[in-house]
Amino acid sequence: MARPIRVGIVGCGTVGTAVVEILLTQKERIREKAEVEIEISKVAARNWSKKRFFEVPENLRTTDWKEVVESSDIVVELIGGVDIAKDVVVESLKRAKPVITANKHLLAEYGREIASLMKKFKTFLFFEGAVGGGIPIVKVLKETLVSNQISEILGILNGTTNYILTKMEEENIPFNVALEEAQKKGYAEANPTFDVEGVDAAHKIAILANLAFGGFVKFSEIFVEGITNVDLLDIKLGKELGYRLKLLAIAKKRNGGEVEVRVHPTFIPFENPLSNVDGVFNGILFKSNYLGELKLQGAGAGAYPTATAVVQDIIQAAKQLTCCGKIFDITALGWNDKSLKVAKDFYSRYYLRFDVEDKPGVLYQIAKILAEEGISIAGVLQQEWILKFLPKPSKVIPLIILTHKAYESKLKRALEKLENLSFIKEKPTLIRVEEEKY
Amino acid sequence: MARPIRVGIVGCGTVGTAVVEILLTQKERIREKAEVEIEISKVAARNWSKKRFFEVPENLRTTDWKEVVESSDIVVELIGGVDIAKDVVVESLKRAKPVITANKHLLAEYGREIASLMKKFKTFLFFEGAVGGGIPIVKVLKETLVSNQISEILGILNGTTNYILTKMEEENIPFNVALEEAQKKGYAEANPTFDVEGVDAAHKIAILANLAFGGFVKFSEIFVEGITNVDLLDIKLGKELGYRLKLLAIAKKRNGGEVEVRVHPTFIPFENPLSNVDGVFNGILFKSNYLGELKLQGAGAGAYPTATAVVQDIIQAAKQLTCCGKIFDITALGWNDKSLKVAKDFYSRYYLRFDVEDKPGVLYQIAKILAEEGISIAGVLQQEWILKFLPKPSKVIPLIILTHKAYESKLKRALEKLENLSFIKEKPTLIRVEEEKY
Repeated sequence: MARPIRVGIVGCGTVGTAVVEILLTQKERIREKAEVEIEISKVAARNWSKKRFFEVPENLRTTDWKEVVESSDIVVELIGGVDIAKDVVVESLKRAKPVITANKHLLAEYGREIASLMKKFKTFLFFEGAVGGGIPIVKVLKETLVSNQISEILGILNGTTNYILTKMEEENIPFNVALEEAQKKGYAEANPTFDVEGVDAAHKIAILANLAFGGFVKFSEIFVEGITNVDLLDIKLGKELGYRLKLLAIAKKRNGGEVEVRVHPTFIPFENPLSNVDGVFNGILFKSNYLGELKLQGAGAGAYPTATAVVQDIIQAAKQLTCCGKIFDITALGWNDKSLKVAKDFYSRYYLRFDVEDKPGVLYQIAKILAEEGISIAGVLQQEWILKFLPKPSKVIPLIILTHKAYESKLKRALEKLENLSFIKEKPTLIRVEEEKY
Repeated sequence: MARPIRVGIVGCGTVGTAVVEILLTQKERIREKAEVEIEISKVAARNWSKKRFFEVPENLRTTDWKEVVESSDIVVELIGGVDIAKDVVVESLKRAKPVITANKHLLAEYGREIASLMKKFKTFLFFEGAVGGGIPIVKVLKETLVSNQISEILGILNGTTNYILTKMEEENIPFNVALEEAQKKGYAEANPTFDVEGVDAAHKIAILANLAFGGFVKFSEIFVEGITNVDLLDIKLGKELGYRLKLLAIAKKRNGGEVEVRVHPTFIPFENPLSNVDGVFNGILFKSNYLGELKLQGAGAGAYPTATAVVQDIIQAAKQLTCCGKIFDITALGWNDKSLKVAKDFYSRYYLRFDVEDKPGVLYQIAKILAEEGISIAGVLQQEWILKFLPKPSKVIPLIILTHKAYESKLKRALEKLENLSFIKEKPTLIRVEEEKY
């Protein structure tokens, strides 16, 4: 066998520790299966006095990330964030060293810059761990689907929010109680903003849109709505109507070449293959011309699943270095200089909940305004069974309207007018509905 | 860009035709995404007068497979079967040419011989299309899960039988009617033996067991039971009990090192992620130590999905030839000389249906014999609601017994004794239950 490949790891939190554990304890298995010899050169962490679930041998420890870059053939960046992490990645690429990362934030914000460094210094960055934890979403998109035109990606890409939404439904509890529970179980961070506001899912779908459609998305152009305002009532009413509420990350190619990239709470019918992806699990559905629908589902976070993805990338790069003396990517896809034009408006079905006084003419006036804006109504629901879902007896009754597909700009204009009607007591609730039939 | 890679295709049925179509019509896309130049050298078919859905250019046509091997850098074998296909594969490997195939039959029967040729002539054979059509099952097993210990694979790997079982349940029809329907729709062949008897699924699980557990399985040692004897009554009773009936291909690693490899109709609880894989779709669940459960689901057959898998392999091989001048496999896993010891007995839960006369002492006697063999009963069902599932009023009533886990040899011994009891009117029905809770 050829000389060992030296792998250096920067960042030794839970994922970093799991990567070290797997590389050290599975060394023999990896040698036998993949026929590569992988050696950890150095592991950098700020604080080595902290107790970890796997003890990193003392001779591998350092606090200086530059020492890691210096001593390695492959650099693994697992610090996260966009500060030091960026320096590590940039410095490694400039030295033509391949980089493995799980840092979605960095890729979503600085993908273009990283891609140009890759090109300039003829090396590569791999990032399976950045999207969907251990689920091989990036590999499938880059390698399996390479000959396919992808029309649509629907993903449940954030385990924290999926856990919260599942708990709200199962245990009949509001958002803030479910969030607390998630925090207690370690599924949500003390500061859960990135997760619950949809930012984490948006980072991930930005990366996938790039790979699928071949160009960069400006992160600030992605429409992002989190789950902090989700009302338990809508989860329950939606379920009665045959829908489950999921925080969906969506990327779609429009005929004109524009792409829709968005993250928001979304109703999907029970028949949608993603509707049974529950709890902390992630799931993704690719639609493409030759393969049709392909769904992947599994552990979207957690130290070991994410480490599995990182180790997959390490082995692939090490194998290339061993067999070929250089690195290449089967398909780089979006890692070019192109930009994707993100659609400002989008086209969807909608669930609208109006809390209205129960008096004559209400439906007439709402329907009139919707008609004026060209919004076509697919269904109306205001029936007695709705009352049983209300927390307490009320004179204000929910009126549910399901629309056909419409541009959201038009819908928003209609809603502005509707808000002025005296019998509408609260700002209407708008939830997008992804109702392709499967 | 480097010189074009010449790809030759032997066999131009539906999958072969779709591969030709994709390589020719997506040439530009593949060049842009993967940065490889792929050229079809020759396509061999026995009969060129047959009309195909994509017309193969005349200058590429030949009837001589040797001409294809001669003129190509990569040989794609898509004839199927184990006769000429084997000659094509052996001859190509002997000339150190990489081979892509979708031929599960050949791999399941001659995997060991093929592997030794690969080693001897320092080349590789890739076979994503052999298992699960367009679903990247082989890639995930070889590349993503390389650092994981796989404990279990559960797969719905045959679309024909899954379609038939789905239709039986949905339309309340017996096996032979559902089979006719599948044949009319082109989902089952005129001679459906390989599919309905479970042989096709067994070929596939043999390949996966090899990859997952690192050694060859003797095909004749695999326990295979098809769906031809499945009774609609059991599908319906099972559903009432919270189970769906699927033809499952199972590979499990036992603690002692033995493996269970088997294919048979299996009850799985609604909560099992595979229970909603319906119709012609395939699905697979991998259980492994670091990643936990990973599920893939998609088009398990069909010309274009399978062609997507074949083209994935072609591009990967072409990319390696272009960048590296040689072929390598990220992980070869099971492609060594080892043999797997296949467990002769296996360990499962069981659903038993006894058609009994409704008279005192029946349950006592059945329970006594089961107890004598150490079979522990998890549940008994003989209630009035069962009667509604019977095709016509009857004095013979189904008695359902669900057992705890037991060795099948013991159960079979008990069943032999039970068959002699006078009040048991038919050979008892035995269906294995895969009831890990998810």
